[in-house]
Amino acid sequence: MPRSGVEARDKLRAAALELYALQGYDGTTTAQIAARAGVNHRTFFRHFTDKREVLFGGEAQAHRSLAEDVANAPAQARPAEVLLHAFEQAARTLDGEADAAVSRLRIIAANPALQERDLAKGAALTQTLASGLHQRGVPTHLAILLAAMGWAAYQQATARWVGDPSQSLSRHLRTAFADLHEAAANLSS
Amino acid sequence: MPRSGVEARDKLRAAALELYALQGYDGTTTAQIAARAGVNHRTFFRHFTDKREVLFGGEAQAHRSLAEDVANAPAQARPAEVLLHAFEQAARTLDGEADAAVSRLRIIAANPALQERDLAKGAALTQTLASGLHQRGVPTHLAILLAAMGWAAYQQATARWVGDPSQSLSRHLRTAFADLHEAAANLSS
Repeated sequence: MPRSGVEARDKLRAAALELYALQGYDGTTTAQIAARAGVNHRTFFRHFTDKREVLFGGEAQAHRSLAEDVANAPAQARPAEVLLHAFEQAARTLDGEADAAVSRLRIIAANPALQERDLAKGAALTQTLASGLHQRGVPTHLAILLAAMGWAAYQQATARWVGDPSQSLSRHLRTAFADLHEAAANLSS
Repeated sequence: MPRSGVEARDKLRAAALELYALQGYDGTTTAQIAARAGVNHRTFFRHFTDKREVLFGGEAQAHRSLAEDVANAPAQARPAEVLLHAFEQAARTLDGEADAAVSRLRIIAANPALQERDLAKGAALTQTLASGLHQRGVPTHLAILLAAMGWAAYQQATARWVGDPSQSLSRHLRTAFADLHEAAANLSS
Protein backbone atom coordinates (compact mmCIF):
# COMPACT_ATOMS: atom_id res chain seq x y z
CA MET A 1 0.00 0.00 0.00
CA PRO A 2 1.46 3.46 -0.89
CA ARG A 3 2.35 5.74 2.00
CA SER A 4 -0.78 7.89 1.51
CA GLY A 5 -2.87 4.72 1.88
CA VAL A 6 -1.21 3.76 5.16
CA GLU A 7 -1.72 7.32 6.43
CA ALA A 8 -5.41 7.27 5.52
CA ARG A 9 -5.84 3.93 7.26
CA ASP A 10 -4.13 5.21 10.43
CA LYS A 11 -6.20 8.41 10.37
CA LEU A 12 -9.43 6.43 9.96
CA ARG A 13 -8.52 4.13 12.83
CA ALA A 14 -7.66 7.05 15.14
CA ALA A 15 -10.85 8.91 14.18
CA ALA A 16 -12.97 5.79 14.78
CA LEU A 17 -11.50 5.16 18.25
CA GLU A 18 -12.12 8.81 19.20
CA LEU A 19 -15.73 8.70 18.04
CA TYR A 20 -16.48 5.30 19.61
CA ALA A 21 -15.12 6.61 22.94
CA LEU A 22 -16.94 9.95 22.66
CA GLN A 23 -20.39 8.93 21.43
CA GLY A 24 -20.41 5.13 21.71
CA TYR A 25 -19.81 2.42 19.12
CA ASP A 26 -23.48 1.98 18.20
CA GLY A 27 -24.02 5.72 17.75
CA THR A 28 -21.13 6.16 15.31
CA THR A 29 -21.46 5.88 11.51
CA THR A 30 -18.76 5.15 8.94
CA ALA A 31 -19.58 8.54 7.33
CA GLN A 32 -18.77 10.31 10.61
CA ILE A 33 -15.48 8.40 10.89
CA ALA A 34 -14.47 9.36 7.34
CA ALA A 35 -15.41 13.02 7.94
CA ARG A 36 -13.38 13.20 11.15
CA ALA A 37 -10.39 11.59 9.42
CA GLY A 38 -10.71 14.15 6.60
CA VAL A 39 -11.15 11.55 3.86
CA ASN A 40 -13.87 10.62 1.41
CA HIS A 41 -16.58 8.21 2.71
CA ARG A 42 -15.67 5.70 0.00
CA THR A 43 -12.07 5.71 1.23
CA PHE A 44 -13.31 4.14 4.49
CA PHE A 45 -14.50 1.08 2.58
CA ARG A 46 -11.22 0.75 0.70
CA HIS A 47 -9.60 0.08 4.10
CA PHE A 48 -12.31 -1.60 6.21
CA THR A 49 -15.35 -3.73 5.38
CA ASP A 50 -17.38 -2.14 8.21
CA LYS A 51 -16.98 -0.19 11.45
CA ARG A 52 -16.38 -3.39 13.44
CA GLU A 53 -13.33 -4.25 11.30
CA VAL A 54 -11.61 -1.08 12.55
CA LEU A 55 -11.43 -2.79 15.96
CA PHE A 56 -10.64 -6.32 14.75
CA GLY A 57 -8.48 -5.82 11.66
CA GLY A 58 -5.02 -7.40 11.60
CA GLU A 59 -6.21 -10.76 12.95
CA ALA A 60 -4.34 -12.77 10.30
CA GLN A 61 -1.14 -10.98 11.35
CA ALA A 62 -1.84 -11.79 15.02
CA HIS A 63 -2.10 -15.51 14.15
CA ARG A 64 1.13 -15.40 12.16
CA SER A 65 2.98 -13.55 14.95
CA LEU A 66 1.80 -15.90 17.72
CA ALA A 67 2.63 -18.98 15.63
CA GLU A 68 6.13 -17.62 14.90
CA ASP A 69 6.76 -16.64 18.51
CA VAL A 70 5.74 -20.10 19.73
CA ALA A 71 7.96 -21.75 17.10
CA ASN A 72 10.90 -19.45 17.89
CA ALA A 73 10.89 -19.90 21.68
CA PRO A 74 14.10 -21.55 22.96
CA ALA A 75 14.22 -25.27 22.18
CA GLN A 76 14.35 -26.35 25.84
CA ALA A 77 11.53 -24.00 26.96
CA ARG A 78 8.63 -25.66 28.78
CA PRO A 79 5.05 -24.99 27.53
CA ALA A 80 4.40 -22.26 30.14
CA GLU A 81 7.63 -20.49 29.12
CA VAL A 82 6.74 -20.83 25.45
CA LEU A 83 3.33 -19.24 26.03
CA LEU A 84 4.77 -16.44 28.16
CA HIS A 85 7.41 -15.79 25.49
CA ALA A 86 4.72 -15.45 22.80
CA PHE A 87 2.46 -13.22 24.92
CA GLU A 88 5.43 -11.02 25.89
CA GLN A 89 6.01 -10.20 22.23
CA ALA A 90 2.32 -9.32 21.81
CA ALA A 91 2.37 -7.22 25.00
CA ARG A 92 5.45 -5.32 23.82
CA THR A 93 3.63 -4.34 20.63
CA LEU A 94 0.54 -3.18 22.53
CA ASP A 95 2.65 -1.28 25.08
CA GLY A 96 4.09 0.64 22.12
CA GLU A 97 0.61 1.92 21.21
CA ALA A 98 -0.87 1.89 24.71
CA ASP A 99 -3.41 4.73 24.41
CA ALA A 100 -5.04 3.32 21.27
CA ALA A 101 -4.93 -0.27 22.58
CA VAL A 102 -6.54 0.55 25.96
CA SER A 103 -9.16 2.68 24.25
CA ARG A 104 -9.93 -0.20 21.88
CA LEU A 105 -10.21 -2.71 24.76
CA ARG A 106 -12.56 -0.36 26.66
CA ILE A 107 -14.84 0.03 23.64
CA ILE A 108 -15.05 -3.75 23.20
CA ALA A 109 -15.71 -4.32 26.92
CA ALA A 110 -18.66 -1.90 26.78
CA ASN A 111 -20.50 -3.66 23.94
CA PRO A 112 -21.86 -7.26 24.15
CA ALA A 113 -21.80 -7.81 20.37
CA LEU A 114 -18.17 -6.72 20.21
CA GLN A 115 -17.39 -8.97 23.16
CA GLU A 116 -18.84 -11.95 21.25
CA ARG A 117 -16.59 -11.10 18.30
CA ASP A 118 -13.63 -10.75 20.65
CA LEU A 119 -14.33 -14.16 22.22
CA ALA A 120 -14.34 -15.75 18.76
CA LYS A 121 -11.00 -14.07 18.04
CA GLY A 122 -9.65 -15.38 21.34
CA ALA A 123 -10.86 -18.93 20.65
CA ALA A 124 -9.18 -18.89 17.23
CA LEU A 125 -5.89 -17.53 18.63
CA THR A 126 -6.02 -20.17 21.38
CA GLN A 127 -6.23 -22.85 18.68
CA THR A 128 -3.20 -21.33 16.94
CA LEU A 129 -1.29 -21.50 20.23
CA ALA A 130 -2.39 -25.11 20.78
CA SER A 131 -1.23 -26.08 17.27
CA GLY A 132 2.10 -24.38 17.92
CA LEU A 133 2.58 -26.28 21.20
CA HIS A 134 1.63 -29.53 19.48
CA GLN A 135 4.27 -28.89 16.80
CA ARG A 136 6.79 -28.57 19.62
CA GLY A 137 5.88 -32.08 20.76
CA VAL A 138 3.14 -31.43 23.35
CA PRO A 139 0.34 -34.06 23.02
CA THR A 140 -2.85 -32.51 21.55
CA HIS A 141 -5.09 -33.06 24.59
CA LEU A 142 -2.58 -31.23 26.81
CA ALA A 143 -1.73 -28.57 24.23
CA ILE A 144 -5.37 -27.43 24.04
CA LEU A 145 -5.69 -27.17 27.83
CA LEU A 146 -2.32 -25.41 28.23
CA ALA A 147 -3.18 -22.92 25.47
CA ALA A 148 -6.55 -22.22 27.14
CA MET A 149 -4.82 -21.65 30.49
CA GLY A 150 -2.28 -19.30 28.92
CA TRP A 151 -5.01 -17.42 27.11
CA ALA A 152 -6.97 -17.04 30.38
CA ALA A 153 -3.88 -15.49 31.98
CA TYR A 154 -3.39 -13.14 29.02
CA GLN A 155 -7.04 -12.10 29.27
CA GLN A 156 -6.57 -11.44 32.99
CA ALA A 157 -3.56 -9.26 32.16
CA THR A 158 -5.38 -7.18 29.53
CA ALA A 159 -8.40 -6.75 31.84
CA ARG A 160 -6.12 -5.42 34.59
CA TRP A 161 -4.31 -3.19 32.11
CA VAL A 162 -7.62 -1.56 31.12
CA GLY A 163 -8.29 -0.97 34.84
CA ASP A 164 -4.76 0.30 35.53
CA PRO A 165 -2.88 1.49 32.43
CA SER A 166 -0.29 3.24 34.65
CA GLN A 167 1.55 -0.11 34.63
CA SER A 168 2.54 -1.67 31.31
CA LEU A 169 0.72 -4.68 29.87
CA SER A 170 4.06 -6.51 30.02
CA ARG A 171 4.10 -6.03 33.80
CA HIS A 172 0.44 -7.09 34.20
CA LEU A 173 1.30 -10.14 32.08
CA ARG A 174 4.07 -11.23 34.44
CA THR A 175 1.70 -10.88 37.41
CA ALA A 176 -1.00 -12.88 35.62
CA PHE A 177 1.45 -15.68 34.79
CA ALA A 178 2.55 -15.80 38.44
CA ASP A 179 -1.16 -16.16 39.32
CA LEU A 180 -1.49 -18.88 36.68
CA HIS A 181 1.33 -20.88 38.24
CA GLU A 182 -0.34 -20.48 41.65
CA ALA A 183 -3.69 -21.65 40.25
CA ALA A 184 -2.01 -24.61 38.53
CA ALA A 185 -0.26 -25.58 41.76
CA ASN A 186 -3.64 -25.44 43.52
CA LEU A 187 -5.10 -27.68 40.82
CA SER A 188 -2.28 -30.19 40.58
CA SER A 189 -1.78 -30.73 44.32
CA MET B 1 -47.00 -23.67 32.00
CA PRO B 2 -49.86 -26.17 31.47
CA ARG B 3 -48.91 -29.65 30.33
CA SER B 4 -49.98 -28.97 26.73
CA GLY B 5 -47.57 -26.00 26.65
CA VAL B 6 -44.65 -28.12 27.85
CA GLU B 7 -45.53 -30.73 25.22
CA ALA B 8 -45.62 -28.13 22.44
CA ARG B 9 -42.25 -26.78 23.55
CA ASP B 10 -40.70 -30.25 23.56
CA LYS B 11 -42.19 -31.06 20.15
CA LEU B 12 -40.89 -27.77 18.71
CA ARG B 13 -37.43 -28.43 20.08
CA ALA B 14 -37.32 -31.98 18.70
CA ALA B 15 -38.62 -30.82 15.30
CA ALA B 16 -36.04 -28.01 15.16
CA LEU B 17 -33.12 -30.33 15.96
CA GLU B 18 -34.28 -32.78 13.28
CA LEU B 19 -34.58 -30.07 10.64
CA TYR B 20 -31.26 -28.38 11.56
CA ALA B 21 -29.53 -31.75 11.24
CA LEU B 22 -31.33 -32.68 8.00
CA GLN B 23 -31.20 -29.44 6.03
CA GLY B 24 -28.84 -27.20 8.00
CA TYR B 25 -29.51 -24.44 10.53
CA ASP B 26 -29.39 -21.59 8.00
CA GLY B 27 -31.77 -23.37 5.62
CA THR B 28 -34.48 -23.94 8.23
CA THR B 29 -37.35 -21.53 8.93
CA THR B 30 -39.48 -21.18 12.06
CA ALA B 31 -42.54 -21.95 9.89
CA GLN B 32 -41.03 -25.30 8.88
CA ILE B 33 -40.27 -26.11 12.52
CA ALA B 34 -43.85 -25.35 13.57
CA ALA B 35 -45.26 -27.42 10.68
CA ARG B 36 -43.08 -30.43 11.54
CA ALA B 37 -44.08 -30.14 15.21
CA GLY B 38 -47.74 -30.02 14.16
CA VAL B 39 -48.44 -26.68 15.82
CA ASN B 40 -49.47 -23.23 14.63
CA HIS B 41 -46.61 -20.96 13.48
CA ARG B 42 -47.55 -18.40 16.17
CA THR B 43 -47.13 -21.10 18.80
CA PHE B 44 -43.41 -21.20 17.97
CA PHE B 45 -43.06 -17.57 19.07
CA ARG B 46 -44.94 -18.19 22.32
CA HIS B 47 -42.06 -20.54 23.28
CA PHE B 48 -38.96 -19.12 21.55
CA THR B 49 -37.95 -15.63 20.40
CA ASP B 50 -36.21 -17.01 17.30
CA LYS B 51 -34.73 -20.21 15.87
CA ARG B 52 -31.43 -19.63 17.67
CA GLU B 53 -33.17 -19.66 21.07
CA VAL B 54 -34.23 -23.28 20.48
CA LEU B 55 -30.53 -24.16 20.84
CA PHE B 56 -29.66 -21.74 23.66
CA GLY B 57 -32.79 -21.57 25.79
CA GLY B 58 -32.54 -22.49 29.46
CA GLU B 59 -29.38 -20.48 30.04
CA ALA B 60 -30.70 -18.83 33.22
CA GLN B 61 -31.38 -22.31 34.61
CA ALA B 62 -27.84 -23.41 33.72
CA HIS B 63 -26.43 -20.48 35.71
CA ARG B 64 -28.63 -21.29 38.70
CA SER B 65 -27.72 -24.98 38.61
CA LEU B 66 -23.96 -24.37 38.35
CA ALA B 67 -24.06 -21.77 41.14
CA GLU B 68 -25.99 -24.18 43.39
CA ASP B 69 -23.72 -27.12 42.61
CA VAL B 70 -20.62 -25.05 43.43
CA ALA B 71 -22.20 -23.85 46.67
CA ASN B 72 -23.33 -27.36 47.64
CA ALA B 73 -20.00 -29.12 47.08
CA PRO B 74 -18.57 -30.62 50.31
CA ALA B 75 -17.13 -27.93 52.60
CA GLN B 76 -13.59 -29.31 52.52
CA ALA B 77 -13.52 -29.81 48.72
CA ARG B 78 -10.64 -28.14 46.87
CA PRO B 79 -11.42 -25.89 43.87
CA ALA B 80 -10.75 -28.64 41.30
CA GLU B 81 -13.09 -30.99 43.17
CA VAL B 82 -15.75 -28.28 43.43
CA LEU B 83 -15.60 -27.68 39.67
CA LEU B 84 -15.68 -31.39 38.86
CA HIS B 85 -18.66 -31.82 41.21
CA ALA B 86 -20.57 -29.05 39.40
CA PHE B 87 -19.74 -30.34 35.91
CA GLU B 88 -20.67 -33.90 36.92
CA GLN B 89 -24.19 -32.74 37.71
CA ALA B 90 -24.41 -31.00 34.32
CA ALA B 91 -23.02 -34.06 32.55
CA ARG B 92 -25.54 -36.34 34.26
CA THR B 93 -28.38 -34.17 32.93
CA LEU B 94 -26.98 -34.21 29.39
CA ASP B 95 -26.33 -37.97 29.52
CA GLY B 96 -30.05 -38.35 30.27
CA GLU B 97 -30.94 -36.72 26.93
CA ALA B 98 -27.82 -37.77 25.02
CA ASP B 99 -29.24 -37.94 21.47
CA ALA B 100 -30.71 -34.44 21.57
CA ALA B 101 -27.66 -32.98 23.34
CA VAL B 102 -25.11 -34.44 20.89
CA SER B 103 -27.27 -33.36 17.95
CA ARG B 104 -27.44 -29.84 19.40
CA LEU B 105 -23.65 -29.69 19.94
CA ARG B 106 -23.04 -30.87 16.36
CA ILE B 107 -25.31 -28.20 14.91
CA ILE B 108 -23.52 -25.49 16.90
CA ALA B 109 -20.08 -26.79 15.90
CA ALA B 110 -21.04 -26.56 12.21
CA ASN B 111 -22.07 -22.89 12.28
CA PRO B 112 -19.64 -20.00 13.09
CA ALA B 113 -22.42 -17.62 14.22
CA LEU B 114 -23.78 -20.25 16.63
CA GLN B 115 -20.24 -20.89 17.86
CA GLU B 116 -19.86 -17.18 18.72
CA ARG B 117 -23.11 -17.35 20.68
CA ASP B 118 -21.90 -20.52 22.41
CA LEU B 119 -18.60 -18.87 23.36
CA ALA B 120 -20.51 -15.99 24.95
CA LYS B 121 -22.60 -18.50 26.91
CA GLY B 122 -19.41 -20.25 28.02
CA ALA B 123 -17.78 -16.98 29.11
CA ALA B 124 -20.86 -16.08 31.18
CA LEU B 125 -21.03 -19.53 32.81
CA THR B 126 -17.30 -19.32 33.58
CA GLN B 127 -17.96 -16.05 35.43
CA THR B 128 -20.72 -17.76 37.42
CA LEU B 129 -18.27 -20.52 38.37
CA ALA B 130 -15.61 -17.96 39.34
CA SER B 131 -18.12 -16.08 41.55
CA GLY B 132 -19.09 -19.36 43.20
CA LEU B 133 -15.45 -20.26 43.92
CA HIS B 134 -14.86 -16.75 45.28
CA GLN B 135 -17.82 -17.17 47.63
CA ARG B 136 -16.13 -20.32 48.92
CA GLY B 137 -13.08 -18.25 49.86
CA VAL B 138 -10.90 -18.52 46.72
CA PRO B 139 -9.24 -15.13 45.95
CA THR B 140 -10.77 -13.50 42.84
CA HIS B 141 -7.62 -13.55 40.67
CA LEU B 142 -7.26 -17.31 41.24
CA ALA B 143 -11.00 -18.04 41.03
CA ILE B 144 -11.18 -16.60 37.49
CA LEU B 145 -8.21 -18.65 36.29
CA LEU B 146 -9.42 -21.86 37.97
CA ALA B 147 -12.92 -21.43 36.51
CA ALA B 148 -11.39 -20.89 33.04
CA MET B 149 -9.28 -24.03 33.43
CA GLY B 150 -12.30 -26.07 34.54
CA TRP B 151 -14.36 -24.73 31.66
CA ALA B 152 -11.60 -25.65 29.19
CA ALA B 153 -11.68 -29.23 30.51
CA TYR B 154 -15.48 -29.34 30.27
CA GLN B 155 -15.26 -28.10 26.67
CA GLN B 156 -12.69 -30.78 25.91
CA ALA B 157 -15.09 -33.39 27.35
CA THR B 158 -18.08 -32.21 25.29
CA ALA B 159 -15.95 -32.06 22.11
CA ARG B 160 -14.85 -35.65 22.66
CA TRP B 161 -18.41 -36.72 23.43
CA VAL B 162 -19.56 -35.34 20.06
CA GLY B 163 -16.77 -37.35 18.42
CA ASP B 164 -17.50 -40.50 20.44
CA PRO B 165 -21.01 -40.61 21.98
CA SER B 166 -20.61 -44.35 22.66
CA GLN B 167 -19.05 -43.29 25.98
CA SER B 168 -21.03 -41.07 28.34
CA LEU B 169 -20.23 -37.38 28.80
CA SER B 170 -19.61 -38.20 32.48
CA ARG B 171 -16.83 -40.56 31.46
CA HIS B 172 -15.30 -38.09 28.98
CA LEU B 173 -15.46 -35.51 31.78
CA ARG B 174 -13.39 -37.67 34.13
CA THR B 175 -10.78 -38.18 31.38
CA ALA B 176 -10.67 -34.43 30.66
CA PHE B 177 -10.19 -33.62 34.36
CA ALA B 178 -7.34 -36.14 34.54
CA ASP B 179 -5.79 -34.32 31.55
CA LEU B 180 -6.37 -31.00 33.31
CA HIS B 181 -4.45 -32.19 36.36
CA GLU B 182 -1.64 -33.37 34.08
CA ALA B 183 -1.55 -29.99 32.27
CA ALA B 184 -1.56 -28.16 35.62
CA ALA B 185 1.32 -30.30 36.87
CA ASN B 186 3.23 -29.46 33.70
CA LEU B 187 2.54 -25.75 34.30
CA SER B 188 3.28 -25.66 38.01
CA SER B 189 6.53 -27.64 37.93
